Formats: sequence, C-alpha cells, structure tokens
Amino acid sequence: MKQKIINDPVYGFITINNALIFDIIAHPFYQRLRRIHQMALAYLVYPGAVHTRLHHSLGAYHLMGLALGELKSKGVEITAEEELAAKAAILLHDVGHGPFSHALEEELLSGIHHEELSLKIMQKMNVEFNGQLDLAIEIFQNKYPKKFLYQLVSGQLDVDRMDYLTRDSFFTGVHEGVIGYDRIIKMLVVHNNELMVEEKGIYSIEKFLIARRLMYWQAYLHKAVLAAEEMLVHILKRAKQLSFTEKDSLKTGSGTDYFLFEFNGIVDDNVLNKFCEIDDVDFEFAIKKWSKHKDIVLSELCKRILNRNLFKLKFQVEEIDDALFNKRQEEVAARYNISKEDATYFVFKGSISNTIYKPNEESINILYKDGTIKDISSIDDTLIHKTITATVKKNYICSINV
Amino acid sequence: MKQKIINDPVYGFITINNALIFDIIAHPFYQRLRRIHQMALAYLVYPGAVHTRLHHSLGAYHLMGLALGELKSKGVEITAEEELAAKAAILLHDVGHGPFSHALEEELLSGIHHEELSLKIMQKMNVEFNGQLDLAIEIFQNKYPKKFLYQLVSGQLDVDRMDYLTRDSFFTGVHEGVIGYDRIIKMLVVHNNELMVEEKGIYSIEKFLIARRLMYWQAYLHKAVLAAEEMLVHILKRAKQLSFTEKDSLKTGSGTDYFLFEFNGIVDDNVLNKFCEIDDVDFEFAIKKWSKHKDIVLSELCKRILNRNLFKLKFQVEEIDDALFNKRQEEVAARYNISKEDATYFVFKGSISNTIYKPNEESINILYKDGTIKDISSIDDTLIHKTITATVKKNYICSINV
Amino acid sequence: MKQKIINDPVYGFITINNALIFDIIAHPFYQRLRRIHQMALAYLVYPGAVHTRLHHSLGAYHLMGLALGELKSKGVEITAEEELAAKAAILLHDVGHGPFSHALEEELLSGIHHEELSLKIMQKMNVEFNGQLDLAIEIFQNKYPKKFLYQLVSGQLDVDRMDYLTRDSFFTGVHEGVIGYDRIIKMLVVHNNELMVEEKGIYSIEKFLIARRLMYWQAYLHKAVLAAEEMLVHILKRAKQLSFTEKDSLKTGSGTDYFLFEFNGIVDDNVLNKFCEIDDVDFEFAIKKWSKHKDIVLSELCKRILNRNLFKLKFQVEEIDDALFNKRQEEVAARYNISKEDATYFVFKGSISNTIYKPNEESINILYKDGTIKDISSIDDTLIHKTITATVKKNYICSINV
Amino acid sequence: MKQKIINDPVYGFITINNALIFDIIAHPFYQRLRRIHQMALAYLVYPGAVHTRLHHSLGAYHLMGLALGELKSKGVEITAEEELAAKAAILLHDVGHGPFSHALEEELLSGIHHEELSLKIMQKMNVEFNGQLDLAIEIFQNKYPKKFLYQLVSGQLDVDRMDYLTRDSFFTGVHEGVIGYDRIIKMLVVHNNELMVEEKGIYSIEKFLIARRLMYWQAYLHKAVLAAEEMLVHILKRAKQLSFTEKDSLKTGSGTDYFLFEFNGIVDDNVLNKFCEIDDVDFEFAIKKWSKHKDIVLSELCKRILNRNLFKLKFQVEEIDDALFNKRQEEVAARYNISKEDATYFVFKGSISNTIYKPNEESINILYKDGTIKDISSIDDTLIHKTITATVKKNYICSINV
Repeated sequence: MKQKIINDPVYGFITINNALIFDIIAHPFYQRLRRIHQMALAYLVYPGAVHTRLHHSLGAYHLMGLALGELKSKGVEITAEEELAAKAAILLHDVGHGPFSHALEEELLSGIHHEELSLKIMQKMNVEFNGQLDLAIEIFQNKYPKKFLYQLVSGQLDVDRMDYLTRDSFFTGVHEGVIGYDRIIKMLVVHNNELMVEEKGIYSIEKFLIARRLMYWQAYLHKAVLAAEEMLVHILKRAKQLSFTEKDSLKTGSGTDYFLFEFNGIVDDNVLNKFCEIDDVDFEFAIKKWSKHKDIVLSELCKRILNRNLFKLKFQVEEIDDALFNKRQEEVAARYNISKEDATYFVFKGSISNTIYKPNEESINILYKDGTIKDISSIDDTLIHKTITATVKKNYICSINV
Repeated sequence: MKQKIINDPVYGFITINNALIFDIIAHPFYQRLRRIHQMALAYLVYPGAVHTRLHHSLGAYHLMGLALGELKSKGVEITAEEELAAKAAILLHDVGHGPFSHALEEELLSGIHHEELSLKIMQKMNVEFNGQLDLAIEIFQNKYPKKFLYQLVSGQLDVDRMDYLTRDSFFTGVHEGVIGYDRIIKMLVVHNNELMVEEKGIYSIEKFLIARRLMYWQAYLHKAVLAAEEMLVHILKRAKQLSFTEKDSLKTGSGTDYFLFEFNGIVDDNVLNKFCEIDDVDFEFAIKKWSKHKDIVLSELCKRILNRNLFKLKFQVEEIDDALFNKRQEEVAARYNISKEDATYFVFKGSISNTIYKPNEESINILYKDGTIKDISSIDDTLIHKTITATVKKNYICSINV
Repeated sequence: MKQKIINDPVYGFITINNALIFDIIAHPFYQRLRRIHQMALAYLVYPGAVHTRLHHSLGAYHLMGLALGELKSKGVEITAEEELAAKAAILLHDVGHGPFSHALEEELLSGIHHEELSLKIMQKMNVEFNGQLDLAIEIFQNKYPKKFLYQLVSGQLDVDRMDYLTRDSFFTGVHEGVIGYDRIIKMLVVHNNELMVEEKGIYSIEKFLIARRLMYWQAYLHKAVLAAEEMLVHILKRAKQLSFTEKDSLKTGSGTDYFLFEFNGIVDDNVLNKFCEIDDVDFEFAIKKWSKHKDIVLSELCKRILNRNLFKLKFQVEEIDDALFNKRQEEVAARYNISKEDATYFVFKGSISNTIYKPNEESINILYKDGTIKDISSIDDTLIHKTITATVKKNYICSINV
Repeated sequence: MKQKIINDPVYGFITINNALIFDIIAHPFYQRLRRIHQMALAYLVYPGAVHTRLHHSLGAYHLMGLALGELKSKGVEITAEEELAAKAAILLHDVGHGPFSHALEEELLSGIHHEELSLKIMQKMNVEFNGQLDLAIEIFQNKYPKKFLYQLVSGQLDVDRMDYLTRDSFFTGVHEGVIGYDRIIKMLVVHNNELMVEEKGIYSIEKFLIARRLMYWQAYLHKAVLAAEEMLVHILKRAKQLSFTEKDSLKTGSGTDYFLFEFNGIVDDNVLNKFCEIDDVDFEFAIKKWSKHKDIVLSELCKRILNRNLFKLKFQVEEIDDALFNKRQEEVAARYNISKEDATYFVFKGSISNTIYKPNEESINILYKDGTIKDISSIDDTLIHKTITATVKKNYICSINV
C-alpha cells in the first residue's frame, strides 16, 4: 500500500503506511468521529476549540508511533504485530464516544462508559476485519502480557492524554497548557514490562501534571463551559420530560428520537448500530428545531445555546445555601412566568472535583539509574509531592439572569 | 463597559473593549457564523480545518485594530468613530455568508453574492442598533472619503485576506501559506487617502502574493477538496431535481426546505430572516438523512461525503476530451446500474482558474521614499512582476470509481 | 524621530519610537551587552542559548511597553514621562553585568552586585544625557511614589523575569519553561500604587512559578552548565594564583589584566570606565591563550572549556563525604601527576539552593473582585501553596575524570 | 554507546546514537565551530542571529537523518554504512569555515574556498579516526555512485540549505523566510540514483526558492549587514597595510597575527593546524584592541563595529557615478582630516548579485507520476518559471557619515 501523509497543525505530518490502519480510518465508524467535537461546547468560550475526536485519535496514533519508536531504540522488544496492534487500539480508543462526548454520556446512555462502547465497536469491526484487531483488543483490555502497551493506550502517561492536552491547548490557545510531549516520550523506559520514566524526566512529569491541572480549571471546567454543558444536559432532560405528553413535536427524524425517547438502557447489536449513527450534528439540529418549540423552558434553553447567551455559573468552596438557592428559583419563576418546578431548568446547582494524581489507581513510576523505582508522589525534592494527591472540590450554582 | 479578552490560538488574545462591538458579537446573526465552516469541506482533507466564519471575523477585527494603530502611530488622522466603524464593518463583512460559504453560494441563492447579503444584514442590524452602524455601512460600501478604511475592509491588502491566509494556513497546518501579517501591517502607509506599502515592504508583499497562490492550489482548490465540494453541489442539484416528484421525503423540517424547494430568487425581508436561520448544521443534517434516501444517486453521494469516500478528481491543462468523458459516464451507468442521465451526477467536469493579482481591479501601490508610487506589478527587480498577472486555468474531470 | 522596528524571534517586532530610547541603545555601554552571553556558558549544553544581555534588555523593554499599555487601558494613570522613564530603567537594568554574567560576578568583582554597577553606570550616562535619566534612576532605586513602576523593573512579576524566562526557554529549546507572559500581563492591575494580579490570573501565576523552577533545575543549574561555570571560576582562581610568580605570561593586553591582577575592590570612576570595556570576548580570548600556557592545571582547564570536555558533576541531597572527597583528590593528583593542592582545581565541591517564592522579600498579591488581597502563598485551593516557600538545596561534587 | 539528545529550539530534539558521530562532535575541530557565527555580523541588524556554525551543522545532520529515513521508507536502498557516512559528511561540511564565515574568506585566505578546507580537515581527521571517514569523504567529493547522497550534502535541495534557511529565519525572526523543510523532505524521491521531487511537491519547491531569495535580500544582503561586513573587510585591509610599518602594535598574540601578516597563500599541514585554531573570538578581540590604535582609520572602523555605528550603504540599479564617488571621498577626507587615499577606507563601492536558480549548474528535477522528469524552471504552470533564472544585480556605495 502507498504511504499517505496527513497535515496536522500540531505535529506537522501524520504518516499512514499500513493497510489495516488505512482501513480503520476509512471505516464509517471512525469517520463518525469527525462529527464529534473533542471539547464538546468549549468552543463557546474558546472559539478555536472546534477540533474533533477524529483529529485527536489521529494525533494519539502519531504519538504512539513516536513512543514505540523511542522504546525500540532503547532495546525494548516490540514486534511489528504489537506495534500495529497498539496503533490500532489507540486509533479506536474513542470510537465509542457519543455526541458531545462526556457532556452527554450520562444523560444519553444512562451512564454506559464510552470505553465500554469503544470495546463493543472494536469487536464489531474485528468481525468485519476477520480478526485483524484481535491483538489490539487484547491490549485495549489489558490482557496482553506486555503491560506497557496497555499503559500507552490508557494510563497516567498514555498517548491519549499527551495528545489531548497538547491538542486542546493548541486549539484553545491556552498556551500554558502545553506539555513537552516530545521530551516525555524521550524519557519513557520499560522495566519489568511496565512503563516508567527516566530520572531526568521528573521535571517534565511535574510540568505535565501541572499543565493538566491548569487545563482542567481553565478550559474543561471553565465556568462558562460548564454552564453551557449543564444547559445542554437540561435541554435533554426537558425534552425527555416533555416527551411523555408530546413526543411528536420533539422528533427530528434522526437517531436522537430513539436515544432520547425509546432507549431502555440495554446495548444490544441493534442499539450499537443506532449508536454508530448519531453524532453532534443530530443534537445541533435538534437544538435549532427546539429553539422554536412552544415550550418556553425548552426553547429558551435552546435559543441561549444557539446564540451563546449563557447562564451565569459561580463557583464557591462552601456548599450552596439552600435558602438562597430556593429564593433564586422563585425569583426566576416569577421573572419568566413559569412554575417553580420549571424553574429548576433555569437555576441549578452541583459540584465538580479534580484530583491531579491518584497513585492507588495508576501510578507514574520513576526509574533511577541505580535501578530504584519511586512513585512520583513520593519523591522528596519534587515541589508537588505533598499536594499532588489532594482533591480539589468546587460547588457551583448556575442560573439564568433575573 | 468592561474589557473582555478572547483566547485565539493564532494571535494570542483578542480584546473587546467597546459596547457596540460587544453587541454585534452577541447578536444571533453574528453567532450564526459559529455554525459555518470557514473552509467548507476542506476539513475532509485537512482535519484541522474546522474553524469557523465567526473565528475568522474576530481575527480580521483584531488585525483591523493593529492596522489602524500602526497608521495612527505614523500620523494618519483616524477618529475614534472611524476606528469603531471600520472595526464594526470588518466584524460583519462575512455575515452574509450562507452554509458552506462559497461552495453553495451558486446553488443555494442563484448567485446572489455574499457581500450583497452582508450589506442587507448590516442594514437590518443597523435599524436595531439605532443607526450606530451608519458609518460602518458607508465604509463597507466605499462611500466614505477616507478610502483606505474601505481598502482595509476589502482590497488587495485588506485584513480579511490577511486573516484568512494566516488562519487557514494555521488550521490546515500548511505552514508554507503563512504570511508575515505583522510585518505587512508595519509597512502600511496612507497617501492621498489611499492605502500603500513602504518601499522596504516589497519582499513581504511578494511573499504574501506567493503564499496566497500556494494556498489556492494546495488548500482551497486541492483536488480532493474540490471533489468534495462538487459532490455537495451535486447533492443539492439532485435533491432539487427529485423534489419535483417527491418533495416530502426530502424535507428535513429546517430552512433548507425553503431554500432548496421554494425560493424564487428574490431576497425580501422575509427571505432575509429565513436566510439568517440556516447554517452548515442544516445541510449536514440533510446529508445524514438523505444518505438513507431510496434514490440511489442521492444516497450514494451523501454516504460518500459522510464517510469521506470521495470521487477522484484529475486536473489537466488541456480541455477534457468529450469522447472519453462520455465513455466514462457510460461505464459508470453500467457499473451502478443507473441511467446515462443519472450518471452525470457521478461523473462531471469543469475548470477552475486563479489569478494572483489583477491590477486593473484593485492595485497594491508601493510608496517610495522620494514620493514615487509604483504598482507592485510594474517594479523591475521584483521576481514576480512578469508573471504576477497571468491567469492559471485548470480543467478537471471528477468521477466515482468504476 | 523616525520609528524603528527590530525583528525579534520571540515577540515578532520591537518598536523604538523615542529619541532617548534610541540614544540609550546607541550608547557604547549598552552595545557592550551585545558581547555578554545572557546565559553565560549554558550554550555548552544548549547550543541555541547564545543570546545576549542586549537582546534580553530589548525584550524586557518591549514587555514594559505592553504592561504599561495594559495598565493604562485599565485606567491606571501613567504619564508619558513615567512611561519613558520606566522603559529607560528596564533597558538599562542589566548594564552593570560583567563578563559571563553571574558566573564571574564573585570572582571578578569581589562580590559587587551587578545592580549596584547598573546604577553607577546609569548615573554616569545621566550626566551625558543631561539629566534625562533622573526619573528612570528614581524608579530603579524604588524612590518613586508609584511603586508599581519599580515592581515592573524589579519584583516577583517584573518584566525582567518575564523576558528572561520566555527568552531563555525559547533559545534553549526547553519549551516546558515557556510562561504565558501575554496572559500574565493581561492580568496585571494596580491597587494602592502596588502591582497585583486579578483573581482569574492565579493559574497563570502558578504556571509562571513552576516554569521558573523548572528552568532553574533544567537549565540554569543543569549539572553540566554548573560544571562549566565552576571550571571557569577555577580558571580565574588559578590565573590569579599564578600571577604572583609569572604575571607576564598571563596578560592578554585587555581589561582582564587589570581586573584579575590589579583591582583592589574599590569602584571609582576610573575603574568604572575600565569595567565598561570588558566583556565575554576578553575572557574567551584569555581562555584560548591560556589553553597553551605551560601550567598544566591552567591549560587543562582552558582546553576543556574550549573543547567542551567538561568535568563530571554529581548532585546529592546529603553532604559530600570528606573522606571520599579527599580520596578523589588524591587519585586525581596521582593520575595527572600534580600536587594535592593543585588537585583542588580538578576536584571540588559546593552546594546550590533555590527557593521558588520568598514572600517576606517581595510578594505576589492577588486582588479579588471583592477587594480582598491575598498573598499567592496563602491561597487555599492553589496546588502549590504548601511547598512554594520551601528551599531546595543540593550538594555537589565536581571532578575531572580519573 | 548510549543515546544522547540535544535540545534544539528549531527541531525540538537532535539525537546522537552512534560512536563515530559522537567522536566527530567531541573533536576540537568541530567544537571550534561553536566560536564561528553562522551569519557573521548579521546580529548587528538582527539581534537574535547569534547562532553558530556548530548549531547549523547539527541541524543539517538532523535533517539528513529525516531525509534518509524518508527515502528508505520509499524503498530506496541505503545501507547503514552509507547512512552513517552521509551524516558524517554533512556534520563536517562546514568544518573548513574560517572566522566570520563568508565575510572574511577572501581577505583572510586569498580566496581558498571553505569547502576545499573542509575536505582537507576531514582528511586530517580521517587519519586520526583510522579511515572511518573514507566513505563520508567519497560522498563529499561526489565520487560515490549513489549520487543522491552527495546531492543531499551539496545540491539545490541539500539539507545544508534546508537547515540554514530554516535556522537563519528562526533566529533572525524573519518568519517569511521559513520553508516547509518537513514537507520538502516528504516529497523527496530517488530516480536513477539522483535526488528528485514528487509532482505534488512543486509548490513547496517554489516556496523554498522564493523564501531563499527573500532571505538573501532581507537578511544576508541587508544593506546594514553588508555595510558591517564590508567595514570588517576594510579593517583587515587596513591592518595589513599598516603592518608593513608597524606590525608590533597590531599583533594580538593569536593566530590572527599569522594569517594577517605572514601567510603566503599555501595551505600545508602546518598552516592547516594554525587555521584550525582561529575563530571569531580572535578577530573580535583584535577589533577591541585596534579600536584604541593610534591610526585613526583603523581605530574608527573598529570602534564603529564595536558600537554598531555603521556606515550608510545605498543600493541602486545603475552603476555608481565616478564623479559623485570621488566627491564623496574628498568630503570625507576633509571632514576627518585624512588623506584621499585613507578616505578609500571610509567610502567605497561595490556590487552584489543573486540568482535564485541556475539550472546549468545543478538542477531541481520533478518526477511525474508517469515517469516524466522536468526541470523546475521548465514547468509551464509554475509562477516563477520565467524569472527564476534571472540574475538580480545591485550596485552600492557605502560611506561614513559626513
């Protein structure tokens, strides 16, 4: 097969030089990712953040090639089959993402995790590809003995994170989120089949963790981004609620009709097929349609997403005061002439939290020259060791203007 | 009003510090540009090229600020009102763009130019804004005495081009298309109310023209991009054709229904309102819907756009040979079991041309230190002077695989 | 005076548009900074780090312009005179740097701090400039009521640091050291005549502190950089020692002769004049000359700097063991056939320490929307607050190979 | 041998993973290049342009690795020995450069070309390295059958040019000089053992040629850069002239004494050794010393280089008028109270020319998909084909201010 290069503003060029990789990319299930925003509604705050899951997957595939090349140059044995499988696995790691990615996961699929769907879809494609994805699936499930391959797909230092931090900071223009992915990759080593980092890579790892934290608070959980995504969630909640009485006016003729109004929570092959047909376009279209719906709650929410007239969201360390919260809902009910119950769509509260590093789940190990291994959170002269595992929690109230 | 900054991966930060500018940006007509791809279907070739008309307009607004600042620092008199008007004009210069920008202009609106629509929409907004856009509209129409303001909005060296070349090359990753916008802006001068370039800016202008040409052939008119956009045009043609017999199965419930099946070519206020409600989402949705249509020609075209299974397009200097072309259509008719007439949707031909610089339309003038003025195309020691005005024409045949 | 622009790879263009600034830059005392490496011998590890003090000063001048512009746009009153003075002060803040900057400060000038010399030289230039630098000197000495001007010249968030971190990370290629100087500048405010940071700038400040720390350990105090600079110090020590017996063979005919062999530690006007004539070139030349000196200790050290054959330096948390250290010196004495005393030039030890933030010296204050002011190290939900003031100390042993 | 990575601001990381390459880099002859500015005195105009020949050679070595990797991935047979030899050859291609590179070549070595010296030095090193450079030298001399290896070292599209254009535009900040080196490398093919470019690389080549031309006129032959370099040449001319009567006051004790005052034009092994000891430092030191020389012509020239007080240089298409030129010299003689003969050091004239592409010397061939080969200058639809081979000549007069 001929070699193909794809221009990427982040890495320059991404090279495809294998028939299986080519077939995966050409597959409709993969192409669907072109219609799913990588950062959901973050583009309402960062106008450049319109990049897609497809683009991210391609980028992660590129980094996988770099990482495996680095490890091989250090003498780690990786066969051509393993390399191909790891690349296929990372290319498909997000294929189970639904419309607006994380933002709608809970609402649309009753909490079925996208990794579970990715696996199901990979298995489906594997049938089509006559088992060519066997090894990729084994790696994806962490069933393959060379654990570092899995860790590159899904772990504290996987190429997924390296790409999304790099790419999201590139497209948002939040330059402070830039990580030194190239240096981190140069610092990777394998020891006892596990991925580790050379001693002199400590500062890069520290930088990586700090940058990730910054991206969480400055981009992924930015108060206006969160407000938009919560508004989206409430749009779906409202549509579902309304569907009991007037489903017809809500239907758009696309897969949203099924997942919003009929899905029973069980993912069989038929459902999987339907799932592989929905993407951001269907919801964007629904929002446009519903912005003219006669239900004022639904149409107001939709119009405000369309026209970027977002609710105000305020973070605070303390719990949201119930009395104040109720008062706010009453004010809104009065102001918009709606019931107190309907006002819960215009005023709501919640909390978010972020932990930079959870060593008990999956650790970053530093391999010293003398063979010692230390968890990054236990290294004495690292700035962050004391605080790295602390969880930061923020409460918020989100409300339409009164 | 409080100052607001917007992160832009291209320029770092874009500052909004005026209430009118803020109101324009917050207006639904402007927010609609968020749902129109700047480069139509080019993202099928350059996965990063998913940026929007809104983002481009903001960037051009930013460059307008830089350019006016530069001119003022050189002693050119520009009042605060003129500055605001020029910024408003550039912010709105693309507000008349329809779905998929240039790609569908001809098919959807019978050739009504987007600048004409931009003007109409600006006038409509001006009523809402109580005449605050009067001066902006005057500049936009080139009716204002300080002609350089118009030239910055629309001319050989306008901030529109500077931004789109910079932005498109950034998002596609075609780094060779990068122009030195900052240096060009530093070289701008005003002489007799006209925009000119200092002598030492000649090489930057040369570079600008070359980069523009490169972007045309490498991105805007890339053979796969052109194929995709021609396929899109043929989708609409087919839908229109089918609508005579079975309109209902083609309707999506959005504004596309009106513009495809009812619009009579006259843009009155009612039509303008309808126009301001359609965007890429409506067509993307229609393509998804029609990909399951029973008409094989329509569904095949739609599926292939969705899944990036594009027709092959081949450029040649010579005219396309009629015999060969007919033979090809016959082969396709046979292969897909369709009529010869239907095959014209799967095999078509055309031509494109590009002229880098048309001095009779609008010129780039160099102002020498001694006061002499020369058109860039008439400067002797410039590499490009002999060829700069030549038109390059290419014929193409575009066809489904047999 | 005509406006002049200077190309800068870091910021694009730096604009000079004032006669005093132009005269400062044209002055031989300022041009001397062109011959002083910004990062001393760090280029032996980072080949790109050959940039100069002049370039850094120009960069800091550029950032001063941006910072003052930002503050003015927020309503802070800054007169044209103050702006010019602050720009002059930052342009000259490093004019007292001697050859190889910090690396030789101690050895060459018996610990006279470069800021003290900068002040003396500014005063000297002020006479020539007929008092045009009066206000700049007042600001530089922190005697001017608008304290924030001084803080921009010398403080935790001064434009000096912002430029050197940005520039050093640019030229070394240590991208992880990049700070968001543009965002930090956008976040600056003035309150009670003091420089503060808006609440939403907290993450940028955190990022700034982390990046600074990273640059210290990865670049400024990189073990090979430190080894090279210590070797340079030992070259001067050796030359001084030898000078008691054979001064003539050590003389080069430049200002190094005076400062190495005659200077008595008192900086009078005559000495200041001599100081303003020495730069890196004199020492680079001396090293070349001495690399052929008959004293094997001196020549070996010089040859090894010239040919980048550096001593090995090893960091450790514990104190260096005396017994081991002595043993090493004995081995070296034997191996190179030199006395135990001479071996102290080939094996030496020391320690370095770095504190990221010392709140008692000069603080970074965050100004909240409600008017509260908090020191960055006392903010609860900041990752780094607990560790930010801790001093990291490392001991090292540095030795020629045996 | 262990792998070593070097930070490079241009390419990120440069990897060294071979003992011979490591030994070449560690050799004093190679380290000498660290003390030779890549762009001679261009830093007087572009303060960032202080990068070195060593850095450039490392960069070219990096690109050689990329280019060979690309060709191998396309099936071109390149053995490990050939790859190593090509890398060694490019690493050493500039080892024969003398102080201030091209600027002093003529004056210092009577026109012995630096490539001739590079060859002699490579041969000298080859003895030390026991013939390990045999193949590298064969390639360097174009005596090896696989001609494309030579073409990558020295040809229209060699990695030398690709690196210096990229690097010089990076360090000067002249972004318009950026070429798409990565894309050009991706477009390289080998046909009949010759280096060619794929059809779809035409625009990148065009861009490359234009960028090169821009760098010539905007950087390498910038009027102030040229003035500085001509001043430097005249410093050496003056020193030589003075040496007939007072050599002692001109000596600095370094290799400059030999090359300026004794060298007879014959490069034997002894001379080669002396040559390998001189670099920019020696001349910078001489200029500092001579800036205090009693000869006013010499000292004035030197002071002006030191303090960046450059002569004015003016380009014109016409020949310089003799009468005007003489008049100018007389004015200068009168103004500075020097003889008419001495005034020839303060007022001089000359001409420069640049041809973007000389097809008869070495061509860029495009390989079409159908196997056709066309010289880039003969392709019809290329913008530049008509003017690409034209020589642009400019005359200049350069003079001290009167």
